[in-house]
Amino acid sequence: MSQVRVHNFTVSLDGFAAGEGQTLESPFGHAQGRLMEWFFGTQTFQSMHGQNAGSHGVDEAFASNWGPGIGAEIMGRNKFGPQRGPWTDEEWKGWWGDDPVFHTPVFVLTHHPRPSIEMKGGTTFHFIDAEPAEALAQAREAADGLDVRIGGGAATVRQFLAADLIDHLHVVLAPIVLGRGERLWDGLESLEERFAVESVASPSGVTHLTFTRTR
Amino acid sequence: MSQVRVHNFTVSLDGFAAGEGQTLESPFGHAQGRLMEWFFGTQTFQSMHGQNAGSHGVDEAFASNWGPGIGAEIMGRNKFGPQRGPWTDEEWKGWWGDDPVFHTPVFVLTHHPRPSIEMKGGTTFHFIDAEPAEALAQAREAADGLDVRIGGGAATVRQFLAADLIDHLHVVLAPIVLGRGERLWDGLESLEERFAVESVASPSGVTHLTFTRTR
Repeated sequence: MSQVRVHNFTVSLDGFAAGEGQTLESPFGHAQGRLMEWFFGTQTFQSMHGQNAGSHGVDEAFASNWGPGIGAEIMGRNKFGPQRGPWTDEEWKGWWGDDPVFHTPVFVLTHHPRPSIEMKGGTTFHFIDAEPAEALAQAREAADGLDVRIGGGAATVRQFLAADLIDHLHVVLAPIVLGRGERLWDGLESLEERFAVESVASPSGVTHLTFTRTR
Repeated sequence: MSQVRVHNFTVSLDGFAAGEGQTLESPFGHAQGRLMEWFFGTQTFQSMHGQNAGSHGVDEAFASNWGPGIGAEIMGRNKFGPQRGPWTDEEWKGWWGDDPVFHTPVFVLTHHPRPSIEMKGGTTFHFIDAEPAEALAQAREAADGLDVRIGGGAATVRQFLAADLIDHLHVVLAPIVLGRGERLWDGLESLEERFAVESVASPSGVTHLTFTRTR
């Protein structure tokens, strides 16, 4: 069976995966780029932006696992864009330009479905109103035997964890206190009992935690 | 000037430093011993209990810094005991037996002062109703040039951090999700801006974070 994976999902010390006040100008709200600073330095991120540069240390070792073996992504609607409620403008095609980084089908969870959007480079956004298990069944079919990535945000990862649908969770702990925003861990008491947990600190200051399902 | 230090202060991934439901039988509430498992294996803990045993790795390196150079401790009343409100029984002398591990003056913050208690081995419990700065002034005087340890629990550490009175904070992150209890990080947004932060993972599974005040 294909695996369900979460990669590079970064939270603050107080457990927030995004700040408050997401807008078109501030995709991460008041957190701005602070959660993802560790990622910006990696070769994986640099190469997404056409740069032949970036680090090759432990941050890169984790970052680079994001793509290989993935056949589809599931993301929450708040990761796709800053709009809320019914779509007033179907021109919005995500934050990622004409040729998004995904290169696979991407299932966007929303209570307001709209027609699929086929982008350059193999990315197609599908908009579905579905519970986690049902969304996963669709994504698995589209992934054609490859793994499915749960792309975030916090509410989406939390729902899939609560439904016990995640096989491999990579959480990055950024040494900052955000104070407010969207919490990852709420409602997941004793989550660790279902996983083998490892951690490793990076010279960049973050700590990488991996949760591998044991049952 | 003597330093104000916090050592071995352990929180869960979701930021709780103690569980819910502290009682005489369950000093850590529903968290039981899970937060402090990393500490039980160290030589420092073992020697507190008369055992000539325990680990000598990174957990011990941090754990052993708890005592040296400390001349007084400040703790919250909930660390001293499970009672709440006015003392109905002044027989309670803490969780630590006749010869407590502190061997210094210990200032217990409470809205219900009571006479000091002199124990064996140099520990004296003083009960004071004071704001952080005032409590620190008293503890510094008692410490006679040595450092002052803020011993917890979460509310006490949080108050001293909010008042910017902590020079060195050692937080241990346990890879568990407690779900409920007493949060450390609330109200401390952007705390990291006042500190240099380092982290190191231990084979025991915890991550040690140190916050060293930079201004």
